[in-house]
Amino acid sequence: MSDVNWTITPGLDLATRAAQAVDRCCALGRFTETPGTITRTFLSQPMHDVHRVLREWMTALGMDSFVDSIGNLRGVLRAANPQRLVIASHLDTVPNAGAYDGILGVVLALALIEASLESAPPPFGIEVIGFSEEEGVRFGLPFLGSTAFTGGFPPELLDHPGKDGTTIGQAIRDFGLDPSKLSNAVFHPETRAYLEFHIEQGPVLEKLDLPLAAVEGIAGQSRFHIQITGQANHAGTTPMDLRKDALAAAAHWICAVEHYARSTTGLVATVGRLQVKPGAGNVVPGEVEASLDVRHLNDSIRNEAVHALLDSAQQIAAARGLTFDAQPLLDQPAVLCAPDLTSSLRRSLRAAGYNDHVMSSGAGHDAMIVAPHIPTTMLFLRSPGGISHHPSESVLVSDVAAALETGLCFLNDLEKDF
Amino acid sequence: MSDVNWTITPGLDLATRAAQAVDRCCALGRFTETPGTITRTFLSQPMHDVHRVLREWMTALGMDSFVDSIGNLRGVLRAANPQRLVIASHLDTVPNAGAYDGILGVVLALALIEASLESAPPPFGIEVIGFSEEEGVRFGLPFLGSTAFTGGFPPELLDHPGKDGTTIGQAIRDFGLDPSKLSNAVFHPETRAYLEFHIEQGPVLEKLDLPLAAVEGIAGQSRFHIQITGQANHAGTTPMDLRKDALAAAAHWICAVEHYARSTTGLVATVGRLQVKPGAGNVVPGEVEASLDVRHLNDSIRNEAVHALLDSAQQIAAARGLTFDAQPLLDQPAVLCAPDLTSSLRRSLRAAGYNDHVMSSGAGHDAMIVAPHIPTTMLFLRSPGGISHHPSESVLVSDVAAALETGLCFLNDLEKDF
Repeated sequence: MSDVNWTITPGLDLATRAAQAVDRCCALGRFTETPGTITRTFLSQPMHDVHRVLREWMTALGMDSFVDSIGNLRGVLRAANPQRLVIASHLDTVPNAGAYDGILGVVLALALIEASLESAPPPFGIEVIGFSEEEGVRFGLPFLGSTAFTGGFPPELLDHPGKDGTTIGQAIRDFGLDPSKLSNAVFHPETRAYLEFHIEQGPVLEKLDLPLAAVEGIAGQSRFHIQITGQANHAGTTPMDLRKDALAAAAHWICAVEHYARSTTGLVATVGRLQVKPGAGNVVPGEVEASLDVRHLNDSIRNEAVHALLDSAQQIAAARGLTFDAQPLLDQPAVLCAPDLTSSLRRSLRAAGYNDHVMSSGAGHDAMIVAPHIPTTMLFLRSPGGISHHPSESVLVSDVAAALETGLCFLNDLEKDF
Repeated sequence: MSDVNWTITPGLDLATRAAQAVDRCCALGRFTETPGTITRTFLSQPMHDVHRVLREWMTALGMDSFVDSIGNLRGVLRAANPQRLVIASHLDTVPNAGAYDGILGVVLALALIEASLESAPPPFGIEVIGFSEEEGVRFGLPFLGSTAFTGGFPPELLDHPGKDGTTIGQAIRDFGLDPSKLSNAVFHPETRAYLEFHIEQGPVLEKLDLPLAAVEGIAGQSRFHIQITGQANHAGTTPMDLRKDALAAAAHWICAVEHYARSTTGLVATVGRLQVKPGAGNVVPGEVEASLDVRHLNDSIRNEAVHALLDSAQQIAAARGLTFDAQPLLDQPAVLCAPDLTSSLRRSLRAAGYNDHVMSSGAGHDAMIVAPHIPTTMLFLRSPGGISHHPSESVLVSDVAAALETGLCFLNDLEKDF
């Protein structure tokens, strides 16, 4: 880490601090399980290195730090007022990740404290958390860090095995932690608000030419496994009017899915997986299995869409003499951010001189787990090209500077509420 | 074979002969490489047993028989007139086949001779051929038997290896034949006509409630490998209007393919294979690879269709900012049966009391290979359920009787031409 400056340097402007934050994210990306990529899963060895570097920085900022029993890095900047704001995001990554998903939110939180210390540090406490697990890669279960933070981690989950047979409990012990002390991960009772900085991981802000947006909530999500069954037939000997082509039926339905979603503001509906059987060029498809993913911030609109899209599939199949089946896989309600806190964030955006655009998140975040327990809001930073979960994921330094400036205004705005 | 009667029995009516032919097909199905299924590929061991049983039958009918150097079973019923009619089909099968595809045509040819001998045997010769290879299973190359029969077998193909490394030449030697004598497979110079009985392998005759049809030709065929490339994106964070969804584009195209084919008499167009990448339920598809299979008896209509369908894909992709590519895999012209011979077969259908329906074949047959060399026609027998290449493939005994009766009329009708 010799080429990246981790020392606390007073008097820097926010643009310089932003560039430093980006450099620091890249430097932390070198702590990886797979050299040449950024791959850092829950409680993996390189997570120790990330903790070490961030704790040194926390100490230099005058913060107390520890690692709780689920592996979350916790740092607290205490103040006269015992109430605290939590600023958090996650430190784990998908395999072959970019350098900013999750960790930018933690680095930004510490950079914000660094910047705030120069002028007037807030009169309330700030806790910075680097959650140990959000992506669900190692154990197939996402949000383990923030779930333990809310006190919702079921003890029996400690016996849940990963791909290599190691249980979550054993992984915790292997990392040098004590799984019998998970209560030390639960949020401090004086916690009054939760803020998460995160890259958008989508193309909306770039399209709108905006650096930032306040997030009003995380879309609910329905997932189904769809099956359309017709009759496989010889592609040469079966005239068009005697076919029961499952793929032709599926194609009509996919068009209907796209049309419905395009006609419904804020709705996204996706058929991302599709398998054709028998899947030979000279055989009329007899069966199609497909996925359906529907998301909206408003659960009634989402549920109405699900019904309409399944009805549409049923009707298309029936009109062709085919059968249709849908198996529900997920029905996750939308999670709304705290309106007051989101208003405060929008005021901060305006105070910092930026558009106070508000949007929903189509992807899950730790904020979604925390929101039912603590007043929560999120600030999205533009994702160039909409790219995430890929080595070419990036952020603009000017957007990081805008987030820092908005964050300083937010700390100021919050003072009246604490 | 003790439970099936192979002896020549005079005085039987055609219904009984038809039932006997069906029994004989089932009995021959027991000669298989995989017990419990009917699987008999080119020059496999059970082919020896089929040859043995059929040659005994040929001998009983007064025919001379031999196995030529590509493994075709040849039997000749000689007559005063040296000119000959060939009646042929294939003896090999797909894996886990039905009992009638191919072999029914050979059994019917011999049953027809058996029936004709009772009244007045034709004044011209009849050669019955059981082609050794039509399905292309063992070496990935179809029509090896009929290709050698036309003199079109390229000698270098003898070095072509199968999946197990054995070459075609070695397979011929292993079967006890001499690959240097392939010229003995070529048709006799006095051959004047070629007839093939074959199950339809499609649903048309069943739908029309007809037992038989004369075949006027075998459809030409175009095959393409299609690729549509968009941009994979997060299904939650990418709004509908910012997507480049390759599957949604493919779905619109598949609808267009179906619509075009339904609107064009006699055309079949099929997307039978489709692969979606990355193929995850929560990712907008970035790439689709698909097959396109287009068939028609009229090559201009087929080529016009191919152009229209590729244009349509190009336009759908371009309108969405996606790219489209099509790689041609096959462009096989239609093969027309001999009009005079097909007319003769239709007269025979009428003379036997049946509808003289004429249709094209959407699947390839040995007749397609033979037609450019010898005046050729085919008689299709109804396929119950349109089912073939499956253990539940069947024929109706009454349809087999109708084919025998039509065959007798055909032999009679041909007399004036020989």
